[in-house]
Amino acid sequence: MTSVTERGTEAPAFLPGLMQPTPLVLHAVFERMRTIYGDTRVAGPEGVFTYAELGERILRLCRVLVEELDVRPGDRVATFGFNSVRHFELYWAVPLVGAVLHTVNVRLFPEQIAQIVGHAGDKVLFFDGEVADRLGDVDGLGIVEQWVRMQPGGDAALPTLTPEVREYEDLLAACPDPIGALPDVPEDAAANLCYTSGTTGMPKGVLQSHRSLWLHAMAACMADHLALTQHDTVLPIVPLFHACGWGMPYAAPFTGAGLVFHGSDSFPANVARLIREHRVTVGAAVPTIWKELLPLLRSGDADLSTVRGIYVGGSATPRPLAEAYGAHGIDMVQIWGMTETGPLACVSQPRRHHGRDVRGDALYAIKEKTGTIMSGLEARVVGETGEAVPWDGETVGELEVRGPWIAAAYYNDPIGSVEKLHDGWLRTGDMAWMERDGTFRIVDRAKDLVKSGGEWISSVELEGALLGHPAIRDAAVVGLPHPKWDERPVAFVVADGHGPGQEPTVESVHAFLADKVAKWWLPDAVVVVEEIPKTSVGKIDKKVLRAAWEARAGELFGIREG
Amino acid sequence: MTSVTERGTEAPAFLPGLMQPTPLVLHAVFERMRTIYGDTRVAGPEGVFTYAELGERILRLCRVLVEELDVRPGDRVATFGFNSVRHFELYWAVPLVGAVLHTVNVRLFPEQIAQIVGHAGDKVLFFDGEVADRLGDVDGLGIVEQWVRMQPGGDAALPTLTPEVREYEDLLAACPDPIGALPDVPEDAAANLCYTSGTTGMPKGVLQSHRSLWLHAMAACMADHLALTQHDTVLPIVPLFHACGWGMPYAAPFTGAGLVFHGSDSFPANVARLIREHRVTVGAAVPTIWKELLPLLRSGDADLSTVRGIYVGGSATPRPLAEAYGAHGIDMVQIWGMTETGPLACVSQPRRHHGRDVRGDALYAIKEKTGTIMSGLEARVVGETGEAVPWDGETVGELEVRGPWIAAAYYNDPIGSVEKLHDGWLRTGDMAWMERDGTFRIVDRAKDLVKSGGEWISSVELEGALLGHPAIRDAAVVGLPHPKWDERPVAFVVADGHGPGQEPTVESVHAFLADKVAKWWLPDAVVVVEEIPKTSVGKIDKKVLRAAWEARAGELFGIREG
Repeated sequence: MTSVTERGTEAPAFLPGLMQPTPLVLHAVFERMRTIYGDTRVAGPEGVFTYAELGERILRLCRVLVEELDVRPGDRVATFGFNSVRHFELYWAVPLVGAVLHTVNVRLFPEQIAQIVGHAGDKVLFFDGEVADRLGDVDGLGIVEQWVRMQPGGDAALPTLTPEVREYEDLLAACPDPIGALPDVPEDAAANLCYTSGTTGMPKGVLQSHRSLWLHAMAACMADHLALTQHDTVLPIVPLFHACGWGMPYAAPFTGAGLVFHGSDSFPANVARLIREHRVTVGAAVPTIWKELLPLLRSGDADLSTVRGIYVGGSATPRPLAEAYGAHGIDMVQIWGMTETGPLACVSQPRRHHGRDVRGDALYAIKEKTGTIMSGLEARVVGETGEAVPWDGETVGELEVRGPWIAAAYYNDPIGSVEKLHDGWLRTGDMAWMERDGTFRIVDRAKDLVKSGGEWISSVELEGALLGHPAIRDAAVVGLPHPKWDERPVAFVVADGHGPGQEPTVESVHAFLADKVAKWWLPDAVVVVEEIPKTSVGKIDKKVLRAAWEARAGELFGIREG
Repeated sequence: MTSVTERGTEAPAFLPGLMQPTPLVLHAVFERMRTIYGDTRVAGPEGVFTYAELGERILRLCRVLVEELDVRPGDRVATFGFNSVRHFELYWAVPLVGAVLHTVNVRLFPEQIAQIVGHAGDKVLFFDGEVADRLGDVDGLGIVEQWVRMQPGGDAALPTLTPEVREYEDLLAACPDPIGALPDVPEDAAANLCYTSGTTGMPKGVLQSHRSLWLHAMAACMADHLALTQHDTVLPIVPLFHACGWGMPYAAPFTGAGLVFHGSDSFPANVARLIREHRVTVGAAVPTIWKELLPLLRSGDADLSTVRGIYVGGSATPRPLAEAYGAHGIDMVQIWGMTETGPLACVSQPRRHHGRDVRGDALYAIKEKTGTIMSGLEARVVGETGEAVPWDGETVGELEVRGPWIAAAYYNDPIGSVEKLHDGWLRTGDMAWMERDGTFRIVDRAKDLVKSGGEWISSVELEGALLGHPAIRDAAVVGLPHPKWDERPVAFVVADGHGPGQEPTVESVHAFLADKVAKWWLPDAVVVVEEIPKTSVGKIDKKVLRAAWEARAGELFGIREG
């Protein structure tokens, strides 16, 4: 019982409330999932299971973790695999026994894998056979004491792994009884460790707590956010190894929504099949996935009649894409976040002054903004002096956020942690402006903003506009050094299958962009390339472009040397 | 910075997460309300204000509280008034300065008012002039150091109050500057003190924390719960002095919904006017309010076309009422809770297996159940041995709940606190059964269940059925002692304006109930009364009926003495 402070004591003190000290941990969410929502189904490459069936399997998996794999509270348990039911089971079992699930990105380079597994100190590693060969040539995984294969495949690579590989289903089959008791985990205990994609330097670990995941899950279910309900079936094509699968493995069970996991096949035909077969109502993925699905939607080969909403993140949604889906009655909603923000921090929804039923141009203009910081979090934009800028819809500065599902530090990285924080606010590295109603728009990554003659040009906005060009399939804009303007934008584009002579030129690009961006934003050069370099999570790797082209900037700009 | 536990230490320990320790306090919600939702409006007897305007007034009110009224952290500040903008301002200002808002029910009897004001130790009392006369004859309010009148009126009663009464708007006008800084309040600090209605014994104080109110507000906004959004305008006719106004003063600003406060006039004409003038989308009140509004809806004198949902609590919603509103396209949703549960703990929504679009009989059958415990809370039903009963849809026991917005104790009442808890679960005093999907139905208050021949009869269900009888306006069912069956039900009914000879009789009641309840549930006697006795919050006062009729049970049952 909490003690009660009496009036009249010398130092005024707050009166403690008398509500239950129930910790915000995943355990109660799990209990609800397997009982109240026991009939709801989860589909994956392994088949279809109810939450009740998964609850039983997860409690056996908890016993496997503790008794067979010697996982103790605080231990890190890594996964290296795609979206599957087994991966989902680990999302639950590992935190339930008080350990920490470390989701390793299967697209990392070998040295990054070795670095983060070593940095995390992973004791057990669960991997998919399909990507076993990516582990075989990684030095420095000796710290891992137990290897478990989640999905079949990769037999040829197994002999390169030490120690002996154990099979997920064999371990589970050998353990018919659920764990006796789960530990009482405090709400600030770590549950999930996810490293940032590391476009700058080595990846950094974000250590999410039970509390932050719990709050994030409830926030996702708010009607003004993703509005998940027990009537939904969610298809997170965003990988479970990336930013916690946008929190869907916890948010869906929080309210009883079903889940569909696509394995490693995110090609449009499979996405269309899963949506049709499982009557998916909510999709979550980067814009590329939806762009690739569009032809099937248009040809009638994809039936999206059950889909009520598509949440798009990772990069800005091109307006033509949102309009194309809108024409089929599907609401495409921009979300924003990063590994450090839980990950969901912002949803672009019509504001009260727009009205609930805003449509057409007015709606798409709203969708082009990033949105409003989620209820429960706070956002501000700070200028170069570190002071918050006015909410005037034009002053650009760095976006900073704070709140109970925002990272306070990186795991075992005191220097990186200090750099990332500013008076308790997380620096996002995104440049944005804020409107008077708190709606913000991210105009670019801080490091990618093109500074031309003291003004800024958004590379992201130019890229979005370029993708609307009929002869351009992919595009990247980089600011390269310019003797007069400091920097000027250069567009690198991939031609969209047109023959010689029909490739995009600087003239055709300028003509196309004329009514879309300010004249002084027009890129000074357009370079047709075979491919845009991307990072392990599919973001444009501008480091590579800058390194390759910086020395040739004068040539691109037609400036004579000397 | 949280320290990190290394592997290999002797005692295995949880790894602390590294997320921001942002406290779940009302301060960040307030900041969001007055900025991001600054344009949203709140209407009340005092006029219409934006959240931005109220934010400015509330920060001045904070200064008034601290500098003029000497309110310190932990102090209790009482209100005694109806639903108004000023009352809403106190809901915010008092917790923001770290003090505790104690909402006193204006319908309490004088001895109860004196008892709870004394028990709470209220330092300041804000009251509406309209109810000043209810305070004038209350002895034992000497503990109150400052009296402030929120609304005009009651001038005649003012001289009976000591010390001198100050005027709310005068205090505010004398303080043009906002408070300089608000204290850093920990999340478990008390924010709100509300006493139970006390149908059994004296009222008991529930001391809600910032954390519990924050979580409750977010939960109310979940799409599967009340689904409040920034597009809503909420009319809580439930009084702000009753169960925290069902949490609406915090839940609406949490997501940017507007609010309408009706003052003391809850007559149908005023309710209809407010809905029309302020384009209300969500109503929240006991069934009686909606029953009284129905004739206006039917005659076209009430325009509810903006209303998307009506949340009904306090007692079970009679099916004919839900059907009547459903016929006008308005979804009437049963909610359940009590002061000790935050107060919202359950919402009756269609489950996944019913489908999102269930309509007609199937929908109304769902609405007759109490619902599912809200995400974030847990519920169970326990039998007489204290063990949880199976979820079989028939075994009746006491409903128990637990979770982060459930009371752990009563304020300064160790004995009451112990009685109310059972292994960390709150005993609700309600008898219920639980279905296999976790849907429960409350069949009666534990003390009101009629025990007949070893079986139970629900007085609540009989009352609901009786209210459908065309000649019955109000009804109460009480179990009275019976020599053969232990107890048998007796119906006390108020006739609905019919002339002599058309009053409800035991025969007409039996005929009417024949296809609605089991034969052995039929009340053995029907007594026509002028009025059903009610408690201060409008619940049937069965204590009074039992006391008056117990001795005459034999007469009612037609049993000869001796």
